[in-house]
Amino acid sequence: MKNRVTELFGIKYPLIQAGMVWCAPWELASVVSNAGGLGIIGAASMYPDVLRIHIQQCKKATDNSFAVNIPLLYPEVGKLMEIIVEEGVKIVFTSAGNPKVWTSFLKEKGVTVVHVVSSVKFAKKAEEVGVDAVVAEGFEAGGHNGREETTTMCLIPAIKQAISVPLIAAGGIATGETMLASMVLGAEGVQIGSRFAASKESSAHVNFKNAIVQAAEGDTKLTMKKLIPVRLIKNKFFQQVQVAENEGASMDELVQLLGSARAKKGMFEGDMDEGELEIGQVSAIINEIKPAAQIVNEIIEEYEEARQNLLSETFEIQG
Amino acid sequence: MKNRVTELFGIKYPLIQAGMVWCAPWELASVVSNAGGLGIIGAASMYPDVLRIHIQQCKKATDNSFAVNIPLLYPEVGKLMEIIVEEGVKIVFTSAGNPKVWTSFLKEKGVTVVHVVSSVKFAKKAEEVGVDAVVAEGFEAGGHNGREETTTMCLIPAIKQAISVPLIAAGGIATGETMLASMVLGAEGVQIGSRFAASKESSAHVNFKNAIVQAAEGDTKLTMKKLIPVRLIKNKFFQQVQVAENEGASMDELVQLLGSARAKKGMFEGDMDEGELEIGQVSAIINEIKPAAQIVNEIIEEYEEARQNLLSETFEIQG
Repeated sequence: MKNRVTELFGIKYPLIQAGMVWCAPWELASVVSNAGGLGIIGAASMYPDVLRIHIQQCKKATDNSFAVNIPLLYPEVGKLMEIIVEEGVKIVFTSAGNPKVWTSFLKEKGVTVVHVVSSVKFAKKAEEVGVDAVVAEGFEAGGHNGREETTTMCLIPAIKQAISVPLIAAGGIATGETMLASMVLGAEGVQIGSRFAASKESSAHVNFKNAIVQAAEGDTKLTMKKLIPVRLIKNKFFQQVQVAENEGASMDELVQLLGSARAKKGMFEGDMDEGELEIGQVSAIINEIKPAAQIVNEIIEEYEEARQNLLSETFEIQG
Repeated sequence: MKNRVTELFGIKYPLIQAGMVWCAPWELASVVSNAGGLGIIGAASMYPDVLRIHIQQCKKATDNSFAVNIPLLYPEVGKLMEIIVEEGVKIVFTSAGNPKVWTSFLKEKGVTVVHVVSSVKFAKKAEEVGVDAVVAEGFEAGGHNGREETTTMCLIPAIKQAISVPLIAAGGIATGETMLASMVLGAEGVQIGSRFAASKESSAHVNFKNAIVQAAEGDTKLTMKKLIPVRLIKNKFFQQVQVAENEGASMDELVQLLGSARAKKGMFEGDMDEGELEIGQVSAIINEIKPAAQIVNEIIEEYEEARQNLLSETFEIQG
């Protein structure tokens, strides 16, 4: 399949593995890239020197395109950007912040830049500052999320009408059917997080991978809306946040409750009670930890099968 | 197109017009049914005698199948059920309540029963009590909504795995592309609300229809979560609810704020400040008030065009 997304990244399938916090090391990104998708190293949970090592290892492990995800609110974002340029990374996905400054910096160095948004307004702003493509992430996505709470089904068609650069859908996508549905809505590619968080090569703690596999429909919720909205598994920590929010907790009280290193504690260290467990609603249909290459292959095969099924339909238009 | 949904209702297209409060009179339902879809009269905003007149008028206006939507929390639900049977209504969609008692009552009378749910748990319960089909309504849908906040993209595949009766998708559907995406996710039909609320034949006040057409992405939000969650346009009344909720208002305080007849005031009487304006996120891509028959035809044509576009793709599986 050739479209603007496969051309932009030089990849075989328009299937992108999200650069998730605590889950996306070079081991995962390189396998996805070798399987024909676009692997992304998640810098959010890495010190600058650690990121450098992951980039170097990824270059050794694949000759195919790969990318790095950089949250623009990262405290030493300038250091990460220096490493990107020094190591010759060709594609950067930015998120969680204003893309204005760093898009022009990266574009001047010849880097392809994609920005993650959750609303029409921010999609237009990203296009204005010159990004090469936009990832639109719906309300169902895991982790940090937008305030508009627009779902993938509504966000993709609305953004499609508003911008002309290629659009990549995220949130609720984990199978060939959900990938095909996203493409029908107007996306030219998909970014998949939760399914790869539960892959063999993910750096998540096995307890967290098991929690993803066990999660059923209704087991995650968007919370911390006064601070930065984040979708979490409804564990003990989540319940504490819920009680605080129901009682009208202030931002300061929520910051206190969140404390530091909650995400690491949960997703990387495996504390299923006190940790912050960021995952998408689509975890409901993820039922097994599999190697990432197998995940890519399965999704692409399901996609093609779902497409073929549509061909065999007969559908008569009423005269 | 023939599938279990078209067969169940005896309709041409698996496209159902939702029986929306204050928006779904016989004038709308009969036009949709005559156009090849399934029209539904919305009983929620009708006194029993008014419902009887709407059913009688609908029978005169179409020879095709039509249905009535009955919210099971309706204070005199028994009276509505008597009228259904007396007037020979053949299809009933129930919502907002436990389907156990009334499903068996209606089935004994030979009525086809469909129940609206918002979670896997309630879909399974509905199947257990013997409904003929299930409507699964995602978080993006307008009006009253579930507590799990599961979006259409995640809800349809999850429920598809859990039940075997036909599944109808609702929430975020307004165009041929969104209809096709829903079918790809595993639905065998779609229920469309917001687009028909803004149709010529809708009984909504013209101010409300204009508000739907003007709504942009991010202009609705799910609120009143301590009471019964409901998705509203962010007008003055919504802002009052928001302030109360942020300050930790109790259920009693919210009931007080809601008062009575808020929905009628907004949607039927056209008070855009003090009224409750129930509409879906998909209002963002609804830009014109059109006759309902034209809406049906456009959606079916777009659906077929979107399907044809998928046929022309080439997609090579990596060996």
